[in-house]
Amino acid sequence: MDFRIEKDTMGEVKVPANKYWAAQTQRSLLNFPIGPEASMPKEIIQAFGYLKKAAAYANHQHGVLPKEKRDLIAKACEEIIQGKLNDQFPLVIWQTGSGTQSNMNCNEVVANRSHVLNGGKLGRGNMLVHPNDDVNKSQSSNDTFPTAMHIAAYKMLIEKTIPGIETLQHTLAAKSKEMMEVVKIGRTHLMDATPLTLGQEFSAYAYQLSFGLKALKATLAHLSQLALGGTAVGTGLNAPGGYDITVAKYIAQFTGLPFITAQNKFESLAANDAIVESHGALKQIAVSLMKIANDIRLLASGPRSGIGEISIPENEPGSSIMPGKVNPTQAEALTMVCAQVMGNDVAIMVGGSNGHLELNVYKPMMIYNFLQSAELLGDACMAFNNNCVLGIKPNHTRIKMHLDNSLMLVTALNTHIGYYKSAEIAKRAHKEGITLKQAALALGYLSADEFDKWVDPGKMTGTL
Amino acid sequence: MDFRIEKDTMGEVKVPANKYWAAQTQRSLLNFPIGPEASMPKEIIQAFGYLKKAAAYANHQHGVLPKEKRDLIAKACEEIIQGKLNDQFPLVIWQTGSGTQSNMNCNEVVANRSHVLNGGKLGRGNMLVHPNDDVNKSQSSNDTFPTAMHIAAYKMLIEKTIPGIETLQHTLAAKSKEMMEVVKIGRTHLMDATPLTLGQEFSAYAYQLSFGLKALKATLAHLSQLALGGTAVGTGLNAPGGYDITVAKYIAQFTGLPFITAQNKFESLAANDAIVESHGALKQIAVSLMKIANDIRLLASGPRSGIGEISIPENEPGSSIMPGKVNPTQAEALTMVCAQVMGNDVAIMVGGSNGHLELNVYKPMMIYNFLQSAELLGDACMAFNNNCVLGIKPNHTRIKMHLDNSLMLVTALNTHIGYYKSAEIAKRAHKEGITLKQAALALGYLSADEFDKWVDPGKMTGTL
Amino acid sequence: MDFRIEKDTMGEVKVPANKYWAAQTQRSLLNFPIGPEASMPKEIIQAFGYLKKAAAYANHQHGVLPKEKRDLIAKACEEIIQGKLNDQFPLVIWQTGSGTQSNMNCNEVVANRSHVLNGGKLGRGNMLVHPNDDVNKSQSSNDTFPTAMHIAAYKMLIEKTIPGIETLQHTLAAKSKEMMEVVKIGRTHLMDATPLTLGQEFSAYAYQLSFGLKALKATLAHLSQLALGGTAVGTGLNAPGGYDITVAKYIAQFTGLPFITAQNKFESLAANDAIVESHGALKQIAVSLMKIANDIRLLASGPRSGIGEISIPENEPGSSIMPGKVNPTQAEALTMVCAQVMGNDVAIMVGGSNGHLELNVYKPMMIYNFLQSAELLGDACMAFNNNCVLGIKPNHTRIKMHLDNSLMLVTALNTHIGYYKSAEIAKRAHKEGITLKQAALALGYLSADEFDKWVDPGKMTGTL
Amino acid sequence: MDFRIEKDTMGEVKVPANKYWAAQTQRSLLNFPIGPEASMPKEIIQAFGYLKKAAAYANHQHGVLPKEKRDLIAKACEEIIQGKLNDQFPLVIWQTGSGTQSNMNCNEVVANRSHVLNGGKLGRGNMLVHPNDDVNKSQSSNDTFPTAMHIAAYKMLIEKTIPGIETLQHTLAAKSKEMMEVVKIGRTHLMDATPLTLGQEFSAYAYQLSFGLKALKATLAHLSQLALGGTAVGTGLNAPGGYDITVAKYIAQFTGLPFITAQNKFESLAANDAIVESHGALKQIAVSLMKIANDIRLLASGPRSGIGEISIPENEPGSSIMPGKVNPTQAEALTMVCAQVMGNDVAIMVGGSNGHLELNVYKPMMIYNFLQSAELLGDACMAFNNNCVLGIKPNHTRIKMHLDNSLMLVTALNTHIGYYKSAEIAKRAHKEGITLKQAALALGYLSADEFDKWVDPGKMTGTL
Repeated sequence: MDFRIEKDTMGEVKVPANKYWAAQTQRSLLNFPIGPEASMPKEIIQAFGYLKKAAAYANHQHGVLPKEKRDLIAKACEEIIQGKLNDQFPLVIWQTGSGTQSNMNCNEVVANRSHVLNGGKLGRGNMLVHPNDDVNKSQSSNDTFPTAMHIAAYKMLIEKTIPGIETLQHTLAAKSKEMMEVVKIGRTHLMDATPLTLGQEFSAYAYQLSFGLKALKATLAHLSQLALGGTAVGTGLNAPGGYDITVAKYIAQFTGLPFITAQNKFESLAANDAIVESHGALKQIAVSLMKIANDIRLLASGPRSGIGEISIPENEPGSSIMPGKVNPTQAEALTMVCAQVMGNDVAIMVGGSNGHLELNVYKPMMIYNFLQSAELLGDACMAFNNNCVLGIKPNHTRIKMHLDNSLMLVTALNTHIGYYKSAEIAKRAHKEGITLKQAALALGYLSADEFDKWVDPGKMTGTL
Repeated sequence: MDFRIEKDTMGEVKVPANKYWAAQTQRSLLNFPIGPEASMPKEIIQAFGYLKKAAAYANHQHGVLPKEKRDLIAKACEEIIQGKLNDQFPLVIWQTGSGTQSNMNCNEVVANRSHVLNGGKLGRGNMLVHPNDDVNKSQSSNDTFPTAMHIAAYKMLIEKTIPGIETLQHTLAAKSKEMMEVVKIGRTHLMDATPLTLGQEFSAYAYQLSFGLKALKATLAHLSQLALGGTAVGTGLNAPGGYDITVAKYIAQFTGLPFITAQNKFESLAANDAIVESHGALKQIAVSLMKIANDIRLLASGPRSGIGEISIPENEPGSSIMPGKVNPTQAEALTMVCAQVMGNDVAIMVGGSNGHLELNVYKPMMIYNFLQSAELLGDACMAFNNNCVLGIKPNHTRIKMHLDNSLMLVTALNTHIGYYKSAEIAKRAHKEGITLKQAALALGYLSADEFDKWVDPGKMTGTL
Repeated sequence: MDFRIEKDTMGEVKVPANKYWAAQTQRSLLNFPIGPEASMPKEIIQAFGYLKKAAAYANHQHGVLPKEKRDLIAKACEEIIQGKLNDQFPLVIWQTGSGTQSNMNCNEVVANRSHVLNGGKLGRGNMLVHPNDDVNKSQSSNDTFPTAMHIAAYKMLIEKTIPGIETLQHTLAAKSKEMMEVVKIGRTHLMDATPLTLGQEFSAYAYQLSFGLKALKATLAHLSQLALGGTAVGTGLNAPGGYDITVAKYIAQFTGLPFITAQNKFESLAANDAIVESHGALKQIAVSLMKIANDIRLLASGPRSGIGEISIPENEPGSSIMPGKVNPTQAEALTMVCAQVMGNDVAIMVGGSNGHLELNVYKPMMIYNFLQSAELLGDACMAFNNNCVLGIKPNHTRIKMHLDNSLMLVTALNTHIGYYKSAEIAKRAHKEGITLKQAALALGYLSADEFDKWVDPGKMTGTL
Repeated sequence: MDFRIEKDTMGEVKVPANKYWAAQTQRSLLNFPIGPEASMPKEIIQAFGYLKKAAAYANHQHGVLPKEKRDLIAKACEEIIQGKLNDQFPLVIWQTGSGTQSNMNCNEVVANRSHVLNGGKLGRGNMLVHPNDDVNKSQSSNDTFPTAMHIAAYKMLIEKTIPGIETLQHTLAAKSKEMMEVVKIGRTHLMDATPLTLGQEFSAYAYQLSFGLKALKATLAHLSQLALGGTAVGTGLNAPGGYDITVAKYIAQFTGLPFITAQNKFESLAANDAIVESHGALKQIAVSLMKIANDIRLLASGPRSGIGEISIPENEPGSSIMPGKVNPTQAEALTMVCAQVMGNDVAIMVGGSNGHLELNVYKPMMIYNFLQSAELLGDACMAFNNNCVLGIKPNHTRIKMHLDNSLMLVTALNTHIGYYKSAEIAKRAHKEGITLKQAALALGYLSADEFDKWVDPGKMTGTL
């Protein structure tokens, strides 16, 4: 490979000749051979594109950056935003905990790319745009990285997570309506209980997600607050007055999302509680989805030796050894995602709680986990929706069989003959393997007519 | 011990003669010798008092319970609410996962106590009030226990948790104001950084808690929704029409808290997501408090070989072997509480995600963890506030010493001479053990006057 | 209440006149009103009894404590060990993170109790035994508290946890043997699969616990290492040479457990990794038990609309509203315990990772969680064993029905006619609701005789 | 793109013409668009190479696969092992929870690649080797996937994790020896305490890792047990007698690792407890490393306003805004990894506890988290070792300054003048800002000579 020599405040470093990054990126590459290469999420790279461009605009507006530099920086940033320079970002998550090296990676790439866009040759000649003094002007890693975190997190939630969950929520609500009159046995403690309708059962799922979405959306306000303008420790040293508000406005404009400057910059650097908060809502949703997906595979279990009250789409052969087997694979993918999100919540919690004084240095790890959860939940909800829930159908035969056999219909008698006598009927039926009605008549507690009038599963659900 | 014989649908059981509980409570006692006795939280017992009384009122209002029974039940419930019958609730957390046995414990105690209040003798004569048919009327364990959970959780948050956190938040904000002009060295990565004021540093803590409180309060809406009226599986079987709304109204009236009936009763029984949601906010606050308490012990470390920039009250001798030692014990108690809350969040997450179909059966475990977190956070914030934060004082001598020595004041030169030359100055000063000014002049990058004008710690904080 | 005045190095404190504790305990009581009173686990109090007695013996043996003092201290300690002085230990978990105050509580109680045992009057006259200089001789909170943690943890594991798990393991293994020839349908992905026997199914449970027990026992070696002798920071300052070995020997003798002095005292104070390690094994066992208990409630589900292949004992009425309902309550108690242990593992992990330099200050919280997990697991396994597993019986009728209906018996044909044709048969049978044999013959892929010879569920399990 | 038509038991699918995979892989690609592409860990693909080759050899040895097929399969598997066919494995983690689709992906690739190796043309002509009937012979996804998990996990631990941790452990032990006589102030509760040596301080780190390694190695036995031979549900249906032992022997031979067949195949499919167990040890090590790395950054904090008792290598410029700043970036990368491992432990715990009956279906998620932890820990320990610990040097000036100033040297007086008088001296010195000796003499409790004799920091550490 060809190399060129780059310099930073610590001295010279050999850098691949055809790469836009410079000394500090290269040092990081050498010092942190940890895990897969280039693992820093692409969403963070893109967010840096937005914020460096916005910083250039704000710096210009506040009179500290000439238009020429602003426009060069903006042009390079646009390429970053569009993903054209992804191969210029080789760094890993497991670097300095402030993300300094990824900030410098961006500063270096923008400066060198600006040089080339300006007609220069990479590694030759005087550069108009300097990585620290221009691209990083009025900034520090300490306020850029958390800003990039919020931009990336907010975008992912709006573009993927919330749409995925909402789609699934709507389908569950629609299914609930569609199956609102399918009367079936209820189950509590996994044991036969009083009846409800399949639609009622699904309404719980729709409501769970609806509560979860509400909780998630309530966290967006904190996430919309940007650290940028706080610079090194939150005081805004070296940034022009009012720059924080201006730069947030530009970020909002460029991303189309309602970002504002943070109320308190010290909090924004020293803590990443907005990430903890939003991910807490993702975890809540994972808890709900685990329950929902588990229920659906329970209800679809069988086909002959399980519950089998619903059927789900057959998407693929289920087994490499058992011919003809069909499995609830979408529920499995989704519940694995839920387990991942639950683990990620703990990683974020540990990182979030371990900051020191003016800076939390678990930032790259935290946003990596956040983005993974947000993406996986969005994708998995969509796949579960399209490849499973939309195709759910009631198995009326089994539903009726279970309902007809149920002993817990006896509960309807409580208000007529009391809990104790009702229990006696159920126990007798269970012990002798007979129907409730037979047991009721045998015990003489009510007449056949009364039984038929009082024990009406449809009425017991309150819907029919 | 003397015993009397009690009966339930499974047969006879010997019960201590002087206890109000009956057969089902006794069975649970025998079947679940798990952990310390009587571990079911007292707050849940009290909440059952509220809800059974409210149910009696609602049942009477809807015409299914005579006034006489209502009033007897209400009287017994009042005693429960006042904690007078606490020794009648011997059951443990680790029982049936729906809390059925604690619901029956309450039904039995209320029925027997009503009998005695009505002039009867415990275990003798016909009882006017029947545990299942009257005390439990229009109810099921499946809707009463989650209702008790919400009542107990909401009350604890309002009465202890939020006041404790708010008190601490106010003190931190006041301290921030009070120390707003104490200029000191900042630290990022635990390394010397640009200056800020002690008040700015503390403002981050105040903001963290303020965000946390906002997040916590946002969860109250979900928690205010009560399952009661759903009965066995959410359909409301055996409950009069409109009873759910009435009973929530009575609970709101008796507790003075804004409870309403749940939008979807199926969700309220099958999931305990409101508990997951609210505890998520408690976890977020624990994350914040861990950072805050850690910072305070770092700032107070020393007194001679640490940072030592603040002093905290000396509340007790710190060591059994090292005479004269004073330790940040309040910070330790608080951070231990934070670790506990973080663990509890996982227990609740595991329980919340493992429900099956119409019922989640991790209810007692979930509410036990919730109430522990809520109580400990409230208490620990108050103790930390009273015994530590209120007494924090800046150590001006050490603060000045650190500030005067700092190399990172060089950052103020960036905008005048650029990042590279500034770095050179700092490195020279560090290497030769001299001051920044000496190094700056030695390198000839600026005059003594310029140095004094540009490097002004107070101005660098933006506050002076 | 009557008070007497006690003094420590910070001054005077009012202490209840009839209590053995003194100034430092009282200060802690006042400074840490956090959570329920006297929450410091009783097992830790007892462990302090053992270690203070052992220290007195070792100090005497090494010539630094007269026999008279040794014997007085030992006598008081014996009373602590026997639980007679439990009401003298009013402190909470949430105190100083080194447990200093509980160490001092013990020092004070032993000193004052020695005074009384020696004929003195509480609060009057000169005390022969001094809390710091005698009871705490050659000790520090920093080495006594972790020693007490190991003693309490080891004892609990040996006396309750391991016996409980072993009992359950043996019962599961016995059940596995007993039901080894009960051929039944297997289920993977909750869907019908190839057959196995009920005994084979249970053999997995027995093996899971057997692996878990092996893992747990492997952690005992680390737990057997005691910090005592390290004193304040691990150097053993103020302790006689060889005292560490002697004192561990006495603790081993008094407890009957194989304790030894720690290889490295610095590790023993600065970290509590042995607690993290042992609890990791408890967590592994909780993971196993969650699976086992879940399976058992799945297999017992129904009775008419679930799987219903086994029946479990009916221990209590299952529902306050549904007469005659029987629920898998023991499985519920156990799985709630498992969730708790999983949460506790995280609390311990957070505490264990947050030590600073010479001392971890999350000790009381860590041991509280450890002891809770260890006790609950032991108790819950025993209850689950006695009240559920011992009474498990196969439901031959349902087992046979499921087996006869199964489509996955077709797998036996793979090696004869290939996977594809086998799949065709299964799909045809499923679609037309006919038996496998009918489908096989209809497709003409084999003869009736071949089918009967090849598709033999018993043979398919490899056991018959 | 060009396509060819492939068929499975559900019908036809279009597959990219130049890819070796077939219908089932393609279905999975379409059905699970969840997260980044091709996320199934490469180590699992490689492990499948080993096991499919071993299965071919075992099948041949047991007379059920001709030599010609065995050799073709082995040849294709070798290419997989060497990573040459990585681009033929496009599937994601978030698929069926048994990993069936990745097993089929391998079966399809091996079959088609065998066809080509045998002179055939992809997608044309009769294939000698069939994916299900030959490549998958005597196997099921249910026993191959957990086998691949154990192979991949074991290899990673042996090749990367353990070497990384051991290297760091050795360096810490060497550093401990090297600095064994550097006397310094100890710190408990982050407050000044009695002295120890820097070597003693580091000995705790070395011991922590040594205990962790022991714990980790103790888990290898469980991990060495392979599920292969259990086929669909653990009974070994369709596999020749003795095949399980043979195939494990071949895997051991091909990998050079001591694999054996599992004692109980039902456990190996239904649970993944060996993964839970081994990862528990990784979590313990993460807990230790978090403490160690935190300590090192504390000790290195400053350079002028922190503790500053050690210096660590300057690997890169620390700040994009603060010139000349050097940060403990290796400690940050390592502690972020630790937080990740802690989160992963919870994801694995959730997955491990949620299996149902004959199969746990969280397998891909569990092994993904396991491998990530194992790789990151190994890499991060190595980077931390090479780029930080090896270069640690004591800062003798600051160490001496802290030691000379310390008030806790007073502890040495306890055994001479008692705890109370010692405390008085320390408090006087603290209050008046004088030295201990000055305070001691002023109080008249001992002579100057006695002070010098008794208060000797070197002696207090027990090493000099």
